Amino acid sequence: MALPITAERLTSLLRPRSVALVGASDKSAFSLLAYRNLVEFGLAGHTYLVSRRAEVHGQAAVPSCAQIGEPVDVAYLMVPQAGMPAALEDAAAAGIRNACVLSSGYAEAGEAGRAAQDELARHAAGLGLVLLGPNHLGFANFTDGVPVCSIPVPRREPGPVALLSQSGASSSAMLDFAAMVDVGLSYLVTLGNEAMITAGHVLDYLVDDPGTRAVAIFMETVRDPETFRRAARRAAAADKAIVVLKAGSSVLSARTAAAHTGALTGDDRVIDAVFADLGVIRVDCIEDMLITAGAAAALGRLSKPGIGIVSISGGACDIVADRADDLGADLPELAPETRAALAAIMPAYGTVQNPLDVTGAAVIDPTIFTRAIEAMSADPAIGVVGVVNSIPWRADQFPGQAFVDAIGAGMRAASGPSAYVNQVMQPVTDVTRASMAHGGVSCVIPGLRQAVVALHHVAWWSGATRTTEAGPPAVPAVPVPEPARRHGKWSEHAARGLLADAGIPLVPARLAGSAAEAVQAAAGFGAPVSIKVVSAGIPHKTDIGGVRLDVPPADGPVRAAYQAVTEAATAARPAGPAIDGVLVSPMRRGGTELLVGVVRDPQWGPVLAVAIGGLFVEILNESVLAPLPVSAVQAGRLLDRLRGQAVLDGARGGVPADRGALAAVIARIGDLALALGEDLESLEVNPLLVDGARIEALDAAVTWREDS
Amino acid sequence: MALPITAERLTSLLRPRSVALVGASDKSAFSLLAYRNLVEFGLAGHTYLVSRRAEVHGQAAVPSCAQIGEPVDVAYLMVPQAGMPAALEDAAAAGIRNACVLSSGYAEAGEAGRAAQDELARHAAGLGLVLLGPNHLGFANFTDGVPVCSIPVPRREPGPVALLSQSGASSSAMLDFAAMVDVGLSYLVTLGNEAMITAGHVLDYLVDDPGTRAVAIFMETVRDPETFRRAARRAAAADKAIVVLKAGSSVLSARTAAAHTGALTGDDRVIDAVFADLGVIRVDCIEDMLITAGAAAALGRLSKPGIGIVSISGGACDIVADRADDLGADLPELAPETRAALAAIMPAYGTVQNPLDVTGAAVIDPTIFTRAIEAMSADPAIGVVGVVNSIPWRADQFPGQAFVDAIGAGMRAASGPSAYVNQVMQPVTDVTRASMAHGGVSCVIPGLRQAVVALHHVAWWSGATRTTEAGPPAVPAVPVPEPARRHGKWSEHAARGLLADAGIPLVPARLAGSAAEAVQAAAGFGAPVSIKVVSAGIPHKTDIGGVRLDVPPADGPVRAAYQAVTEAATAARPAGPAIDGVLVSPMRRGGTELLVGVVRDPQWGPVLAVAIGGLFVEILNESVLAPLPVSAVQAGRLLDRLRGQAVLDGARGGVPADRGALAAVIARIGDLALALGEDLESLEVNPLLVDGARIEALDAAVTWREDS
Repeated sequence: MALPITAERLTSLLRPRSVALVGASDKSAFSLLAYRNLVEFGLAGHTYLVSRRAEVHGQAAVPSCAQIGEPVDVAYLMVPQAGMPAALEDAAAAGIRNACVLSSGYAEAGEAGRAAQDELARHAAGLGLVLLGPNHLGFANFTDGVPVCSIPVPRREPGPVALLSQSGASSSAMLDFAAMVDVGLSYLVTLGNEAMITAGHVLDYLVDDPGTRAVAIFMETVRDPETFRRAARRAAAADKAIVVLKAGSSVLSARTAAAHTGALTGDDRVIDAVFADLGVIRVDCIEDMLITAGAAAALGRLSKPGIGIVSISGGACDIVADRADDLGADLPELAPETRAALAAIMPAYGTVQNPLDVTGAAVIDPTIFTRAIEAMSADPAIGVVGVVNSIPWRADQFPGQAFVDAIGAGMRAASGPSAYVNQVMQPVTDVTRASMAHGGVSCVIPGLRQAVVALHHVAWWSGATRTTEAGPPAVPAVPVPEPARRHGKWSEHAARGLLADAGIPLVPARLAGSAAEAVQAAAGFGAPVSIKVVSAGIPHKTDIGGVRLDVPPADGPVRAAYQAVTEAATAARPAGPAIDGVLVSPMRRGGTELLVGVVRDPQWGPVLAVAIGGLFVEILNESVLAPLPVSAVQAGRLLDRLRGQAVLDGARGGVPADRGALAAVIARIGDLALALGEDLESLEVNPLLVDGARIEALDAAVTWREDS
Repeated sequence: MALPITAERLTSLLRPRSVALVGASDKSAFSLLAYRNLVEFGLAGHTYLVSRRAEVHGQAAVPSCAQIGEPVDVAYLMVPQAGMPAALEDAAAAGIRNACVLSSGYAEAGEAGRAAQDELARHAAGLGLVLLGPNHLGFANFTDGVPVCSIPVPRREPGPVALLSQSGASSSAMLDFAAMVDVGLSYLVTLGNEAMITAGHVLDYLVDDPGTRAVAIFMETVRDPETFRRAARRAAAADKAIVVLKAGSSVLSARTAAAHTGALTGDDRVIDAVFADLGVIRVDCIEDMLITAGAAAALGRLSKPGIGIVSISGGACDIVADRADDLGADLPELAPETRAALAAIMPAYGTVQNPLDVTGAAVIDPTIFTRAIEAMSADPAIGVVGVVNSIPWRADQFPGQAFVDAIGAGMRAASGPSAYVNQVMQPVTDVTRASMAHGGVSCVIPGLRQAVVALHHVAWWSGATRTTEAGPPAVPAVPVPEPARRHGKWSEHAARGLLADAGIPLVPARLAGSAAEAVQAAAGFGAPVSIKVVSAGIPHKTDIGGVRLDVPPADGPVRAAYQAVTEAATAARPAGPAIDGVLVSPMRRGGTELLVGVVRDPQWGPVLAVAIGGLFVEILNESVLAPLPVSAVQAGRLLDRLRGQAVLDGARGGVPADRGALAAVIARIGDLALALGEDLESLEVNPLLVDGARIEALDAAVTWREDS
């Protein structure tokens, strides 16, 4: 796509002053819905109907865009696939520069559809047209009151959350839910197949949209990773949280998504690692997506990660504590001064802790709520206070307005942000809004589980995206080989050289070109050695018998081992390249073996993987991932996430690993991979042996990309 | 509590014909709410107000129950703690046999409160009174239309779900939510501190209540485990699902619950194991509890575990597939005949799979929905079909009634049960009910995540409680020691005898009383041996140097080892009991070490624990639990749940374990523990060595209860 999708272009698309509904028809539900929306928002005068009939939806229509005779910002194309080229040409001829393509049968419909979509995009670009879709249902700009979509959109006050969805069919339900729980929207953009404009482009536009404070995205695939990544970094810098419901965490959904969108969902563990790196919040369901985005927009960035809970129900405190434990949400213990302040407020039979049960005493004296919220919010570890109570949504409910008022007073007096938490999921209705307005309550999260999810995610995001760095760190200066040498799989000896140059510690080794040299090398080490054949043509030297371990450093055994491994190499590749010699290294015992590797994800580029190896690799069956670059601090956090990390701390009777030094070496391996650039396919250090403060790469493999 | 809580007594309590509100007062919100509820349900004529004032709530009151002069089934006691003894005596004098005690300040209020509660129960029992509470908010019998509670209860059609809650403060929110999502209730019973009547008693009553088909319970503690267990087994046999939201999965909530209820939450892993054994569904939040109970009541026991999904939205299919994967819910692949049937229904560009996206073709022809549901429900692996679509709840929503009608037709034509699944959480309102009635839809689950949770749990429950066994299995016949011998900690030698008698395989061993006997024993094995001191007084023989491993079977080394371990024993306990000798066993190499133990949970009795031991015990840091008895099949399932089970299958290059034989030995260990009865404190086989088909206990420890 040669056409740049600029901010100016997205503005003219998403804030249009006029719309042409092309292929308008009384028989089409899509047409009817789109027209009705525009009329309901008072935009009939800015809507042009393009149809073969002279009258559609009771209004005059014109046969082509060219005949509108007024400037039009968006062509909303409801014509069948076969008529699309002519429709694009007509729109372009009329000076229209943006189009929504509703039609399906493109990339979601197999090989032929993919080709048709490529042609669609090429054609549009040639005409200077930017496309949203195809296979989508339009968009609605709630901030300016411009609905350009075939989803029924009720008129609502605009709000701070933009909602993007690759699924048109589910976006109506998402709109309903946002309205139900009073999460106000700035935009709904259905993205469809993203032939040109992707989620990342719209996200980038929204970073600069003053009406948007958080972005919720339902997506099955990230089609333009670099645009998404850049936009996500900009959003973080602008204090705008991104909350993503990303399908594809299961094999089944990856297959399902491929079936109905033609898109691959990507390696889900890499997606998780990338989102964690970018500070993108990932959720599990539509409800959590919208509630969390609403909470992020309402609360903003928290200055401290701790969540304080003040509740009328002890049972609710228990549920909150359990769900916080599941998610790793931080309900900090209270500081002595907070405890003292709360003790002065609470009845004697109450227990001062977090979560705080204000007890039945608050039924008699609701100001206990007010004062407890204020005291909790002042705690040095608390960044947000969640106040659990009921709030009515039906007129026939017990209003309990005295409690709402007392809580609202506490929320307004609080030192930091706070949220009213209803004990269960329920709508925000006029009854609720009246109660909130009377009490001065601005934000209600419906449901205890939902509140823990939302507050935890907002707290996590606040920390994960709080950075003073401007942009990604520079590629570190590490010596790299000449381009001419960057091909194929390198021998262990060559790989060792690369690591050594980059300052990565290695087990000592001598390259021996003869049995006599091997004997001499072993004698020099004065301890049992490993003897490995070295040949770029034999990457899996163990498999062919090219490795002998624990060889005594004496003439006979070393000669025998030398002969065995060189003969094995010759037998394995009789016509192969000559061997470079054998590597002689002292044997290492004890310690913990790690596997540290960098592979190139097709979407996201180089990704670092760390696993505990050796005996444990199959048993633990786990690795942790992070996109590069990875700092030593980040590498340390990766180690913290290993379930089997106890082994590093001497669980097997060994010396605890020097975690700081280990993290630095792991980060250095990542730096080296990054410095090696696009030509690198993979870099693997396996094992990296850790024994207390001694950290050594025992073996390494470097593979360059085939096409480089 | 000497007073038996019989079915007859619970019936007179929970289906009362008349109620006395004792301590009625215009100033009390509790009194006002209780009175209003009774009046709204048309029971003013069966309600008696007992107060020091002549008139309360605009009605005449009497000063004591004795002066009512009519038979009364329940005294609803709102008097302060100080007045409780007199109130109980007055009620008993009036011939009242049941009471609800609202007052707080009992077990939830520390040591003095616990003593007061014991005295309350004793006093009531002496008077022949059965109590609900204290520290609760009453109950409501919706089936018969009798609310005896201080929670506002709207008049609703009764339904099939009974709701029990130890938390009064949260039960109002639970009622609201049940009403919102149209989960009909038969009962609400708030349990409070359960001084007499516990959740298990009410559960037992509900098993025989024809109006109740599923029971939802919010609990912080199981106060009477045996009653609960017995009632849960009866409920399973009666096809009534139990759905429990049990607090206490985190350390924090255990502490929180203790603070506001005075109850210990119990060992959460044991609770999980017991619930799994009983087929009790455990959920995470109030919403899941009520939705799942409603689904269980509506769907009944499924004949097959598979869940089929038919959806209008591909995005919804992805979300369902991902959440099913998280939970381990079974979305089976479709059988060839189902695929063929669906292929004939679906458009060519659709993909036939489960979950099934019916595609936009269903927008034009909604009967695709009808036929797809019917075909899916006929699949041999599908026990329930979830149909994903929207259904309106507000009058201003797009009704889409044609889809509801087509789906309803499919649900009625389906071979098995089915549920309508709305894409997001929302209320069931009159608008929804009208749409459902028109379409003939009887069950709506709101939200994709919630639907996966509910359908998965109902499917799991259907299988977990499907049994032909009548009651728990009999204690197996295993030789047991004389009562006189059942004390203290037994020596390894004694423990070995117990295991051998029970048919549990052991590594060979000889008890040697002298160095010469040890030498002879080692020579007999003809291989390196272990030499361990045997003394009931030295349970931790390794710690004191009482064990030598890998001793060559020659005179010198065996004598030296014999001397070393006996001297170590004497040094460790110079005044202790004499040693019994030393055990000489052949050393074992290779294989996998398991730890199999039985401990007595203070609430639930003997619990079997299985873990992978040796090198892996600290790294994996996991064990799996099950209450006894455990059959060999159940033991096999426990092994399947071990994360590190790859080690059993030869992951470290060993021979795969004979899992069947291993499971049988583990079950046998459990049987032995059960046969040893109440006197056993713990039985531990550590390690149980598994090497292919060879399974041997290498060491064992038996501890009897201190008080036996």
